[in-house]
Amino acid sequence: MNDGPELAVLRLGHRPGRDERMTTHVGLTARALGADRVILPDNAGQSKETVKDITARFGGPFAVELSDSQKALVREWDGRVVHLTMYGERIQDVESEIREAHREDPFLVVVGGEKVPFGIYEHADWNVGVTNQPHSEVAGLAVFLDRLFEGRELEREWEDADQRVIPRETGKEVEPTDSE
Amino acid sequence: MNDGPELAVLRLGHRPGRDERMTTHVGLTARALGADRVILPDNAGQSKETVKDITARFGGPFAVELSDSQKALVREWDGRVVHLTMYGERIQDVESEIREAHREDPFLVVVGGEKVPFGIYEHADWNVGVTNQPHSEVAGLAVFLDRLFEGRELEREWEDADQRVIPRETGKEVEPTDSE
Repeated sequence: MNDGPELAVLRLGHRPGRDERMTTHVGLTARALGADRVILPDNAGQSKETVKDITARFGGPFAVELSDSQKALVREWDGRVVHLTMYGERIQDVESEIREAHREDPFLVVVGGEKVPFGIYEHADWNVGVTNQPHSEVAGLAVFLDRLFEGRELEREWEDADQRVIPRETGKEVEPTDSE
Repeated sequence: MNDGPELAVLRLGHRPGRDERMTTHVGLTARALGADRVILPDNAGQSKETVKDITARFGGPFAVELSDSQKALVREWDGRVVHLTMYGERIQDVESEIREAHREDPFLVVVGGEKVPFGIYEHADWNVGVTNQPHSEVAGLAVFLDRLFEGRELEREWEDADQRVIPRETGKEVEPTDSE
């Protein structure tokens, strides 16, 4: 979002077919709510294309990548790692400490699919629960980003968009942008 | 959540197979983040069972229903209707007005799938965009509820749960509850 150190979201695990839309929604939510980059498993090429297409039409900067070594990426991340999990510490208890740390350090936010390896829990600087209830990795990521950025992500400007939506009380309005 | 007028979430539209997990995640997110009830389309029986099962294990109160007349339900709702859409007014511009209204009136929060009929835009008291970017109905619902309840939903107590998660820095801890 260009107002601090990088924030990348890593989607851990992807079952082609079954997880297609969830993985796509993780990528689109990361983009819309202020992350700089999303890293998807290397079998999630279809989700990558969707997120790239939306970025081309609605603007960036936002990067989407595939990786075949996600655990290594977590281990070798040069910065802080947050793992979102319903077993973690309550977001309301740790968010100010996390916000503080993000002023200095690049962040990797890990969003699990099924069965996250124990090493991820151990390696994370914070395991964070957006509630300790089972719900949705997309919902957890959304609330985490909105709280981390304290709403600044909603004011973000988009570059190189073909089109933009004009907020309206009723109906739909989309206008082409002149991005020369 | 028992601290104000009812809040129900209505999931509009469901394509069996394709939408199963998104619809389930809408239901689970509604439950985890403070709604009292979710109303799913009548072809989403599988999602209903999953949400019921989670409520039985992790507690309530939370109701899940199927309806075959969702448009009528919106039209006849005795209270206020919020429709979440990327074409709507910016949440940061309308949230305090909406919060104020929810102190008095029951709320129906409509979460669309594909192609929401124009009548829903017209009938809604507010069309609200959690960003005017395409992302995820689950993410939009999550941020909307967290902002509406200003985090109170995270402190909610659960009744009649069989088990509960103990927040931990590392690892997983689940304990049985004695709910006699």
